[in-house]
Amino acid sequence: MQLLDALNWRYATKKMNGQPVPQEKVDNILEAAYLAPTSSGLQPFKVIIVTDEAMKRKIREIASDQSQITDSSHVLIFAAWDNYTVERINKVYQHIETERGLPEGTFSDYKNRITALYTKRAAEQNFEHAARQAYIAFGLAIAAAAELQVDATPMEGFDNAALDELLQLPQQGLKSVTLLPLGYRDSENDWLVNQKKVRTPKDEFFLQIA
Amino acid sequence: MQLLDALNWRYATKKMNGQPVPQEKVDNILEAAYLAPTSSGLQPFKVIIVTDEAMKRKIREIASDQSQITDSSHVLIFAAWDNYTVERINKVYQHIETERGLPEGTFSDYKNRITALYTKRAAEQNFEHAARQAYIAFGLAIAAAAELQVDATPMEGFDNAALDELLQLPQQGLKSVTLLPLGYRDSENDWLVNQKKVRTPKDEFFLQIA
Repeated sequence: MQLLDALNWRYATKKMNGQPVPQEKVDNILEAAYLAPTSSGLQPFKVIIVTDEAMKRKIREIASDQSQITDSSHVLIFAAWDNYTVERINKVYQHIETERGLPEGTFSDYKNRITALYTKRAAEQNFEHAARQAYIAFGLAIAAAAELQVDATPMEGFDNAALDELLQLPQQGLKSVTLLPLGYRDSENDWLVNQKKVRTPKDEFFLQIA
Repeated sequence: MQLLDALNWRYATKKMNGQPVPQEKVDNILEAAYLAPTSSGLQPFKVIIVTDEAMKRKIREIASDQSQITDSSHVLIFAAWDNYTVERINKVYQHIETERGLPEGTFSDYKNRITALYTKRAAEQNFEHAARQAYIAFGLAIAAAAELQVDATPMEGFDNAALDELLQLPQQGLKSVTLLPLGYRDSENDWLVNQKKVRTPKDEFFLQIA
């Protein structure tokens, strides 16, 4: 399925039917998130995969009781770094140098520049920057699901602090940003499934400077 | 091209060759950004398309002199709403109701809830939220370009305030967040083109809660 067809097919599924998503499709969706480009290649977030039913019930409780969380087979949680640190940035560039077989220190100048920039900023500003990167991956996971005709519901409507505590994210230097339940639409019971997809008029959304 | 193949094909092109991207491919890339899902369907950003050579030169000057800006044929600028307002939210929901042929006020309860939530928050917090939505579209535009084997360089490294002034974005209630030059790689002169794509080890990027 071409990307535009997939994006037209998808919608923010409101009711799922409980049918599980095969593992190879989940793996494909995760791979899209993994391959997402990020600023300076830092990938400043993690993707947490929840399949445990009890855990899904707990998440649903702190996510406005949205039924897709327990009617999906997999809930993906995108959690961004709470800050950029020297150690985290060093680790990324050491890994890149190793993987490319380059001498240690090849990227030192660049790495030192971004480290100086990031470490002088407040943690909150760095978290916001990291969260934006997570949204790129979030978008690509949504696209990958649609390409495979797997339904997904992008969600921000949950109690971030409660979810962070539930998953012990602060101890890992992470803060939750979005949820993405994966499953299949319950077409007979989803009020949104047959509604027209509506977007802002194009002449307002695009601005051409020719 | 399947999405994963496209994501593996793409890279943050460092040197472009000046060859123009055909309009139908640009339109496809723009359509992907347009179809991106956003929180409550608000699409709180615009995509600005720059093809004018003089304007591209001016943008390059305030974007760390990155050559892709002038060696691309199209520069996309993602600019997020500087705030959520009653008027902006009302306009979106009026349009959705009209397009779906629903009675005026169908979404009043939902709309009033998000309006109450957003309008009590600081403009800066709302802008950050809007910027995150723009990153979903940014990611989908990058994916669409890759699917069409069009090169694209995701960029944050520019002087946002200077670009906002250049494009008169504050007058439109917008703030720039990212740039995306579209063009074609200059394989002979791009140091990055043959470097291995490196990502964080998967056992660190993913966390399974089974």
